[in-house]
Amino acid sequence: MRLKIINPNTTTSMTVKIGKYARAVTGPDVTVDATSPRQGPVAIESHVDAALAVPGVLEEIASGEAAGYDGYVIACFGDPGLKPARELARGPVVGIAEAAMRTAAYLGRGFSVVTTLSRTVGHAWDLADQYGVARQCLGIHACEIAVLDLETDSRARATVLQACKQALAKDGSDAIVLGCAGMADLCHDLSAELGVSVVDGVAAATVAVEGLVRMHLTTGKLNELAFPSR
Amino acid sequence: MRLKIINPNTTTSMTVKIGKYARAVTGPDVTVDATSPRQGPVAIESHVDAALAVPGVLEEIASGEAAGYDGYVIACFGDPGLKPARELARGPVVGIAEAAMRTAAYLGRGFSVVTTLSRTVGHAWDLADQYGVARQCLGIHACEIAVLDLETDSRARATVLQACKQALAKDGSDAIVLGCAGMADLCHDLSAELGVSVVDGVAAATVAVEGLVRMHLTTGKLNELAFPSR
Amino acid sequence: MRLKIINPNTTTSMTVKIGKYARAVTGPDVTVDATSPRQGPVAIESHVDAALAVPGVLEEIASGEAAGYDGYVIACFGDPGLKPARELARGPVVGIAEAAMRTAAYLGRGFSVVTTLSRTVGHAWDLADQYGVARQCLGIHACEIAVLDLETDSRARATVLQACKQALAKDGSDAIVLGCAGMADLCHDLSAELGVSVVDGVAAATVAVEGLVRMHLTTGKLNELAFPSR
Amino acid sequence: MRLKIINPNTTTSMTVKIGKYARAVTGPDVTVDATSPRQGPVAIESHVDAALAVPGVLEEIASGEAAGYDGYVIACFGDPGLKPARELARGPVVGIAEAAMRTAAYLGRGFSVVTTLSRTVGHAWDLADQYGVARQCLGIHACEIAVLDLETDSRARATVLQACKQALAKDGSDAIVLGCAGMADLCHDLSAELGVSVVDGVAAATVAVEGLVRMHLTTGKLNELAFPSR
Amino acid sequence: MRLKIINPNTTTSMTVKIGKYARAVTGPDVTVDATSPRQGPVAIESHVDAALAVPGVLEEIASGEAAGYDGYVIACFGDPGLKPARELARGPVVGIAEAAMRTAAYLGRGFSVVTTLSRTVGHAWDLADQYGVARQCLGIHACEIAVLDLETDSRARATVLQACKQALAKDGSDAIVLGCAGMADLCHDLSAELGVSVVDGVAAATVAVEGLVRMHLTTGKLNELAFPSR
Amino acid sequence: MRLKIINPNTTTSMTVKIGKYARAVTGPDVTVDATSPRQGPVAIESHVDAALAVPGVLEEIASGEAAGYDGYVIACFGDPGLKPARELARGPVVGIAEAAMRTAAYLGRGFSVVTTLSRTVGHAWDLADQYGVARQCLGIHACEIAVLDLETDSRARATVLQACKQALAKDGSDAIVLGCAGMADLCHDLSAELGVSVVDGVAAATVAVEGLVRMHLTTGKLNELAFPSR
Repeated sequence: MRLKIINPNTTTSMTVKIGKYARAVTGPDVTVDATSPRQGPVAIESHVDAALAVPGVLEEIASGEAAGYDGYVIACFGDPGLKPARELARGPVVGIAEAAMRTAAYLGRGFSVVTTLSRTVGHAWDLADQYGVARQCLGIHACEIAVLDLETDSRARATVLQACKQALAKDGSDAIVLGCAGMADLCHDLSAELGVSVVDGVAAATVAVEGLVRMHLTTGKLNELAFPSR
Repeated sequence: MRLKIINPNTTTSMTVKIGKYARAVTGPDVTVDATSPRQGPVAIESHVDAALAVPGVLEEIASGEAAGYDGYVIACFGDPGLKPARELARGPVVGIAEAAMRTAAYLGRGFSVVTTLSRTVGHAWDLADQYGVARQCLGIHACEIAVLDLETDSRARATVLQACKQALAKDGSDAIVLGCAGMADLCHDLSAELGVSVVDGVAAATVAVEGLVRMHLTTGKLNELAFPSR
Repeated sequence: MRLKIINPNTTTSMTVKIGKYARAVTGPDVTVDATSPRQGPVAIESHVDAALAVPGVLEEIASGEAAGYDGYVIACFGDPGLKPARELARGPVVGIAEAAMRTAAYLGRGFSVVTTLSRTVGHAWDLADQYGVARQCLGIHACEIAVLDLETDSRARATVLQACKQALAKDGSDAIVLGCAGMADLCHDLSAELGVSVVDGVAAATVAVEGLVRMHLTTGKLNELAFPSR
Repeated sequence: MRLKIINPNTTTSMTVKIGKYARAVTGPDVTVDATSPRQGPVAIESHVDAALAVPGVLEEIASGEAAGYDGYVIACFGDPGLKPARELARGPVVGIAEAAMRTAAYLGRGFSVVTTLSRTVGHAWDLADQYGVARQCLGIHACEIAVLDLETDSRARATVLQACKQALAKDGSDAIVLGCAGMADLCHDLSAELGVSVVDGVAAATVAVEGLVRMHLTTGKLNELAFPSR
Repeated sequence: MRLKIINPNTTTSMTVKIGKYARAVTGPDVTVDATSPRQGPVAIESHVDAALAVPGVLEEIASGEAAGYDGYVIACFGDPGLKPARELARGPVVGIAEAAMRTAAYLGRGFSVVTTLSRTVGHAWDLADQYGVARQCLGIHACEIAVLDLETDSRARATVLQACKQALAKDGSDAIVLGCAGMADLCHDLSAELGVSVVDGVAAATVAVEGLVRMHLTTGKLNELAFPSR
Repeated sequence: MRLKIINPNTTTSMTVKIGKYARAVTGPDVTVDATSPRQGPVAIESHVDAALAVPGVLEEIASGEAAGYDGYVIACFGDPGLKPARELARGPVVGIAEAAMRTAAYLGRGFSVVTTLSRTVGHAWDLADQYGVARQCLGIHACEIAVLDLETDSRARATVLQACKQALAKDGSDAIVLGCAGMADLCHDLSAELGVSVVDGVAAATVAVEGLVRMHLTTGKLNELAFPSR
């Protein structure tokens, strides 16, 4: 089984990190390749960023189809390009927000999302609503660290931890969802310190798409998500 | 007052038509310019089409800002790029699906949408839901005419009329919403033949954005739709 | 085009103010007449007030029909009598709560309403729900000034300003909706002081009904809102 | 205990019938008086009818308060004037649509409403939504008999029975709700013929208000439904 | 008329209290018998408790059917076993959470629930949602007194009173719903001290089932709640 | 990793089948044990059946905890006992309805459920609602084959196939969800014949719980699903 994990931004260090944490949860018979578009925004922190990243994501899907991948992950918490990617691909495509929130829904009555900048919170609520987990999503909390600062700001880890603690206390939630692919490396430590399950979307989406491929389940091609005619 | 009407596809004959029907509803002091992106899909009939049209729409917004336009219409019933366009523009931006459905909501308990291909129906329902008119939207009906065939297929007008009649009968609705900018020229005749109000989104959005500009109302810039930092 | 703006209460000074602010947003070819019922409550601050105002509103519609008006605004934020008025009139009828909230929905993710007395807040939520903007309505805040005190209480303007500031901070909203026709004269100043769009329902409804008339759109007469048989 | 059952229309024969069926379900210690307004519409079949009936309903509440009644029923399936009546009365006020639908909700997964004219169906859905029973309300079916024809049309009973049978078959419902106070006399026979519970709102509301009085429960007066200040 | 009130837990002192407060609201021609299962949990404070109580509740229904009871109340605020009980019984079955919340919905815009332990709050919200009163339920507040401590803890009454006061202030509600059958004896005093209606589910459900029996209304047996085939 | 798959009914042949199809989708390092309660109903086709099966399911969880299992599947499409099971277990517990519906939600806009008897359809809708997939669930269709007849009725396979075809045509769905653990053996053939993904809940839940264990994610124990105190 070959899975392609697409980092929609062009920051290579994030792509490497994403690949590492995807590989950590797959079975021994699964090959995971992590890539990012040739061009596009270096991080996705606005609707404009997301819109400009999508053509590159779709190019990665198209080249993945040519190379015969079995499934795809879109590794940005806004799930940019998820629907058009599903149109283009034969195999399943899973977004990390979608997978993280659906996975967290198995863990109790509700979860809290801890994300980067407050201007992305509205879109995350829209996704929760589209994915049917708005009731389980008890709060979405911005820690006001920009995506790329997660890698360079020495206080990032402590700030995220603090935001998680506040989220658990305020929301009375049963799990934390990390609202950025760039937080994948924090997942294990946060869980240990918080005493509650912490869901990283990169892992959750990789596990989900591996499961779909294993069950031979793929996007329905009879209706809205049929291959485009042009 | 200067308004820019953006046809997100690259079919110039549609752009001309859209400009004509936008100008038909504006006041004498309003200049309406209709444009389309330099490159992109010739019609928008899939999620891939919509995704690839958005960068061109955003370029049109950016050049419009440089030229000092007061407001914008995005003239495709999928409202592609509406949120990123609102981030970029100082003045108001209105989509034609949004305006058509909100306008129709003034006309009674509910409306029916008559649109092009059935693969677009799901997205139209998503928009109805986002815009808060899902309860008023009593049905969305595809007449299975492709966008560009609206201009060339001699049976298009009769087919759309038939779909409108069936929609009114099935849904018990109080108005028809036309689900494609390319149907703008059918609006007047359909209304006469059906005996019920028919809402063209191009007109509705142009009237809406003119009204917003006249009232000095514009996109909130304090939160999610602030100008992007990059 | 002739529009009739109906102030549902019998306080003439409010009727004059409403007419002034309606005229400020209409085109040069539009005649705006502002009226109020011959008898009824002097202000609408309870369900009883609203119920007793409606017969007078309907008399104004009936006399308006005899006089050949093209459209109507009901200028009280509770939109009293909107549905029966739509049954009686040939042309469109728009309520100011309806128009203000739908207009504000174009300006971002959400808006806050600032209104008069807390006992009216529940009804305003009901309207937001009926009009499909409950998700966009992020908060409804009473400033505890009675309707008629808006005109006489020298601290009214400062109190409303303070309530708007608190609403923006608490709700993270993108616009303010003024929840009383008697606040129309505060709109411009509040917007300047707050740095955010402030929507006055009198202006929004007048613009909306003018647009509907210009597009030849009117209430559906095939179903629920057909002319009454008696 | 003294209960006042208000027939909002001025057709005395209906008032007599309503009183009879209210008395049939009350305990021996309960006095039931049925009244109707001095003036107003003879039947309620439009929003205009409902609006014009409400002032008379409120006069009946006011005179009832002077006479010391313990509770009230508003016996028209549109529940006209329910909220202002609750403002005016010390004791509980119950509408027959409200009581019929809430009572039917005890009887299974869902119920069907069979009502008079199709133009009233939309309002009945609005009430189901407000009362929180929209999910349990599986269908609302008009039998196209006008309110006053229920008493004079010899085919009325058969037509209603037929509509009930179709509703049960189409909706898969567990009970029938009669959508007009004028159908109270059909309830027992319909239930026998259909083999399913048939809920008459007059009985349901009378039982409900008797129960509220017996438990010393009444409208909250701290907030929206406080006595009006004027 | 003979009604059977089933206390789903095995604490006999609670069963006695429940019977007393059920009898206090029934008519003179009604016999009320209060029982509890032969074995099962002594109190219901977790999903496990509820699950293990249900078989005993169903045995009580079965023996009640053999004895010819006309209707049943399930007297635990989680309404354990309500649906299977409705399958087994010919006559109506009402749960106290269901009845308390539906009854409180007659009293104004919204109510607050005051209950025992915070771990039960989620289930109470689920019930509010299922019964269609989620919008009217403005808050559910745990006072952190275990069920059996209500009878023995001398501070219980003061703690519940304090929680009610806080709930009214925070939620702006029109009534209080007591979230445990073991609070039935507090209802009258709380109402007097709070100046607002306080709904005890034991009373509300008993009144509701008596009313259903009086109107000859019972569970629909055509569909989901038909008698089980085994 | 050791997983315990609990068949809530006592029909051993189904337990064997469930174990076989669970093992078919797990990794080589996973041990799958399938069990069923010592006593309880032979099939679950009513609320009474479900209620009486739960104590046995909880005994299986308790013995599983003593034996050190890492996770559990409850293999009946009604997900009986899911919440109390989560209270008792340290590791994750997944129901097959929950997993099947959440998994199908990855495959397109919507899915159809094909299940056994029509009296179970209402409960399946309730689950779709609780799990947040009511919008994606486009239809639930009973094929009127009892659970145990799936194994013995030679026409069962053809009847289920026919129901799937009708569901796809009527709902316009992108995938089929099989609404009974006893249909697990039909999944592969149905998918081949229908040309669309068919989701078997046994496989979906087993994959889901394996993924949760692999990611070290488990039920939140801070709130509602904490271990019971008794």
